[in-house]
Amino acid sequence: MRRILPILALLLPNAASAAPGPHLSPADIVAHAPDTAWADVPADRLLVMTLADGRQVAIELAPQFAPVHVGNIVHLARAHRWAGGAIIRVQDNYVVQWAPRDEKAQPPAGFVAHPPAEYDRARQGISFHPLGFTDPYAPAAGFATSWPVAAEGERAWLPQCYGMVGVGRDMPPDTGDGRELYVVNGEAPRQLDRNLAVVGRVLTGMETLGALPRGTAALGFYADKAQNVAIRDIALAADLPPAQQPHLQVMRTDSPTFSAYLDARANRTDPFFVRPAHGVALCNVPVPVRPKRQGAAR
Amino acid sequence: MRRILPILALLLPNAASAAPGPHLSPADIVAHAPDTAWADVPADRLLVMTLADGRQVAIELAPQFAPVHVGNIVHLARAHRWAGGAIIRVQDNYVVQWAPRDEKAQPPAGFVAHPPAEYDRARQGISFHPLGFTDPYAPAAGFATSWPVAAEGERAWLPQCYGMVGVGRDMPPDTGDGRELYVVNGEAPRQLDRNLAVVGRVLTGMETLGALPRGTAALGFYADKAQNVAIRDIALAADLPPAQQPHLQVMRTDSPTFSAYLDARANRTDPFFVRPAHGVALCNVPVPVRPKRQGAAR
Repeated sequence: MRRILPILALLLPNAASAAPGPHLSPADIVAHAPDTAWADVPADRLLVMTLADGRQVAIELAPQFAPVHVGNIVHLARAHRWAGGAIIRVQDNYVVQWAPRDEKAQPPAGFVAHPPAEYDRARQGISFHPLGFTDPYAPAAGFATSWPVAAEGERAWLPQCYGMVGVGRDMPPDTGDGRELYVVNGEAPRQLDRNLAVVGRVLTGMETLGALPRGTAALGFYADKAQNVAIRDIALAADLPPAQQPHLQVMRTDSPTFSAYLDARANRTDPFFVRPAHGVALCNVPVPVRPKRQGAAR
Repeated sequence: MRRILPILALLLPNAASAAPGPHLSPADIVAHAPDTAWADVPADRLLVMTLADGRQVAIELAPQFAPVHVGNIVHLARAHRWAGGAIIRVQDNYVVQWAPRDEKAQPPAGFVAHPPAEYDRARQGISFHPLGFTDPYAPAAGFATSWPVAAEGERAWLPQCYGMVGVGRDMPPDTGDGRELYVVNGEAPRQLDRNLAVVGRVLTGMETLGALPRGTAALGFYADKAQNVAIRDIALAADLPPAQQPHLQVMRTDSPTFSAYLDARANRTDPFFVRPAHGVALCNVPVPVRPKRQGAAR
């Protein structure tokens, strides 16, 4: 018999098992979540990256955390500045980074050349669902409006977890402007928290970005431009023909289902396990994503 | 100017920068480490996996944590039971798993058919260098003889960090026997701590394993056997011709250099950073590895 390991099946909408009961896995809880536990990802906060080979990646933007950088990114996407761009860097257990077609091109109208350091924001207004366990990087950790959030005093920020998208920059005081972006691909490099702007997260397609060949030059850059992974385009979903717009939902982190899911992530009592951990790290509770179901109420 | 992100350059022996001083990056500290900060990885604790395409992965074994499972693995390697085997599963942000050529073959002499649950061990005898920060999965976390270690009361275990190798098993009470192994490839699935036997870690070659295409069947298994990634062999380094034996060193976690490295991982003050985190997670302090230098004292 093939030996297996437990799975966190975030995208198995048909993985319904027995009716909800004790000792459920996180995947079971997600599979049985009612429609009211899910929130739509609006098309004007969603980017669709299409690689030259046709594979796609969906990225949800977080304007509530980095409004100016996100504004720049939306301007760039609407002007198709990444069409003909490329993934130029894949560093194992760290990041995948991409660049626009022409770094020297005049930015589009409305672009802010030198955004402020949107590395954290005011905590006020954030409705925080605590993680419930310690975080070595921040005094407070939890979730708000379907995002993971860390906080200290009156400041809050998006943590640099697996799948989170941030803004590449030069040495301080440069903050980056949104033209070069990266996604975290490995153990969460939380030392980057509050040092670079986090603008969003990959919702679908990490299996594509994560499997790219690692670059062999320093920092994981591709040594030869011929190795760069060509990007066909990065577009705002709202600008795509309706039939091409992804319809995705993320779990509401203020829902009872999310509370149960978080508890199950921290305390695995499903049959595969012999000992629950009684704790979990912030980045080890990825907020569930699913394709929106036809006829779903919201 | 290309925008960059900081790098943890664990294998850049020539990345010497300025003489040691303040505000060093972890990479700087590793690059300047004296030879006395490094310990050889013995050839009889080292596996060399060679894929059919010639790429290699070096795996250090941890018999002090899982002696029976490691004993089985050594028997299997010496009998070349993975020659003609394959990587059968690659699940994004989770594991890469491989299997021997013939699951039905009679195990080699000396093989223990039903090993005990080597999911943790007595803490006694472990010389613990504390991490110095909280861990949501264990009351105590740190390092011992160049391994990351978590502990609770009188028990200690190897955490399921990126690059750690564990034993695939079926439902309890099965413990696995070492024939199917996996490596963690993503955010540390620490919920697996004390639920599966950890037998070692990948020292070199994660850039190969991490970049494999993700399987599309459930749990990341390859849907079609034709997609399996063929293994030419997994051999014990000590059994290879001397010229083929990797000579690797890991940093001594009882060395002053390691203390400085750990501090730098937790407090990035090198020029790229604007704000140190003042903390770090256990799995975000990978123990440095380097090729042994010719003429190095040990």
